[in-house]
Amino acid sequence: MTEPTEESGEDRLIARYFKPLATHPAAFGLVDDAAALIPPPGQDLVLKTDAIVGGIHFFPDDPPGLVAQKALRVNLSDLAGKGAIPLGFLLSIALPKRVDEAWLAAFSAGLAIDVKHYNCPLLGGDTVRSPDAVMVSVAVIGTVPHGAMVKRSGAKVGDRIVVTGTLGDAALGLKLRIDTGAATRWKLPREQQQHLAHRYLLPEPRTAAAGAIRAHASGGMDVSDGLVGDLAKLCRASGVSATIDAARVPLSAAARTAFAAEPALIEPILTGGDDYEVLASVPAGQLEAMRAAAAATGTALTEIGTVTAGHAPPSVMLHNKPLNFAQRSFSHF
Amino acid sequence: MTEPTEESGEDRLIARYFKPLATHPAAFGLVDDAAALIPPPGQDLVLKTDAIVGGIHFFPDDPPGLVAQKALRVNLSDLAGKGAIPLGFLLSIALPKRVDEAWLAAFSAGLAIDVKHYNCPLLGGDTVRSPDAVMVSVAVIGTVPHGAMVKRSGAKVGDRIVVTGTLGDAALGLKLRIDTGAATRWKLPREQQQHLAHRYLLPEPRTAAAGAIRAHASGGMDVSDGLVGDLAKLCRASGVSATIDAARVPLSAAARTAFAAEPALIEPILTGGDDYEVLASVPAGQLEAMRAAAAATGTALTEIGTVTAGHAPPSVMLHNKPLNFAQRSFSHF
Repeated sequence: MTEPTEESGEDRLIARYFKPLATHPAAFGLVDDAAALIPPPGQDLVLKTDAIVGGIHFFPDDPPGLVAQKALRVNLSDLAGKGAIPLGFLLSIALPKRVDEAWLAAFSAGLAIDVKHYNCPLLGGDTVRSPDAVMVSVAVIGTVPHGAMVKRSGAKVGDRIVVTGTLGDAALGLKLRIDTGAATRWKLPREQQQHLAHRYLLPEPRTAAAGAIRAHASGGMDVSDGLVGDLAKLCRASGVSATIDAARVPLSAAARTAFAAEPALIEPILTGGDDYEVLASVPAGQLEAMRAAAAATGTALTEIGTVTAGHAPPSVMLHNKPLNFAQRSFSHF
Repeated sequence: MTEPTEESGEDRLIARYFKPLATHPAAFGLVDDAAALIPPPGQDLVLKTDAIVGGIHFFPDDPPGLVAQKALRVNLSDLAGKGAIPLGFLLSIALPKRVDEAWLAAFSAGLAIDVKHYNCPLLGGDTVRSPDAVMVSVAVIGTVPHGAMVKRSGAKVGDRIVVTGTLGDAALGLKLRIDTGAATRWKLPREQQQHLAHRYLLPEPRTAAAGAIRAHASGGMDVSDGLVGDLAKLCRASGVSATIDAARVPLSAAARTAFAAEPALIEPILTGGDDYEVLASVPAGQLEAMRAAAAATGTALTEIGTVTAGHAPPSVMLHNKPLNFAQRSFSHF
């Protein structure tokens, strides 16, 4: 027999890098095989899982802390779109042999920032080997008052369509990573390049605005696969159509610079992925109250269109002419 | 604009292969971004995530239906070790381009069998691209009456140590896959080879015995990384030691045949992974009641040792002599 202190490599990694993130009593400091969560009374649990994979959703040489934050944040963004507040998450990571302990230390340090910032502790996890790519799968649990989850299926004819923040930044940030000549062509000053690159690397989930969304939205979801395609999903689930005005879609200064230099960028701006903003329908009479409630949390809310009757895919108008896109939505499949 | 019925590739795959598994009302038939679960009153939720990766936990050419079942079952096994009943699960899969729709059809068909058999519906999921390996991550939710989860930390000095089923089969089954001469050396008849191979491919989680485990066990966990190492984890969490008798460890007829031909196999039998049986401590006075309750569900329970005082790693005795192993537990790290 070996030393009493002997632990497996996985146990040691967990104790060192992940136990500090398991601040919820349900997690038993990760010494047990499972968490035991006492559900908060009167609340429904909102459940979501999303995975990100190296070489697909992030670049293998991206800073590990940002990879960890992105993995959690894409899930927190879904919760925000449902009007839910984070309760905690389960983490499953597959790591190739080349990933060393420094990588893992940076990964867990990044995660620690968001665990604290979003008050979303680690409830449990699994660390396994991968033959090649890093894969990070998060299952997040949020809460809403019973029956109050904002659904995709709630949009009603006449509702206004709103989005948080600015759209298209991440899609342009990804283009900047892939196409080295783009920054020059788009006449982007350095700080605008950095803004777009950062928006791709690190989503800003609209957790702060979840209460405003829950209080006022009739339907909602986060925008992760491009505005036009995600709006089509919202409409399909709600049995409605919609018209949006592309000129009203909120753009960052950087996206405006790029679009002015290359008008064809309207397509990736409106159909590219990784926005992680919230798209919602709101009864016209509640629009101003919702805008004020969101503004109180530092979240800009912009009206971009209206829910209409019928089952046609949403119309995207620009200066009173319909825009047509080859692919309305980002899909890996 | 395109046809009104246009959906993204991922949406189509989800509707075709996964919606039929989402029978719980919380899942909204997978048309929403998230599930909204009304927690069952008076119950704690037991949460666990475990991932399996092609080339690491299964062979890339294993039947996809069995891969799906294994991914769910390794998580159900954890629930059983905690005395918990399945409520539902979230599924996150990363698939390389070479995986075609026939693979996915077989994968979901396998999953459908277990969703029904274990009454564990799909609550939500995510399907992403992988550059190379298939990764399947499951986050399972179970229930126990409030405060009743069986913990790793509950073993008391004097308690008996019990295991369900038979141990070592999967480790031998894996050796048969890797070492083509083993079946002959071990003098294994064909049906015994098949038994061991099947035990590696398809775990049998002890879900049926969860009630018996919860009613009688002082501490428990599933055996997934080898008996000796997992017993050490149970002891460490409980602040105790233990002595087990290797001769009492329950073996299948196939494992007995192999062990008789090659006595050194005692090491993989006691330290190899993938058993997915339950290891528990039980007060001596409750042993017979626990055995009877387990037997009523068709689950064999075998006493293999005793919890002792101290913090030394568990002793494994064979014919009154201690056995020593190079590595007590399976670990990919």
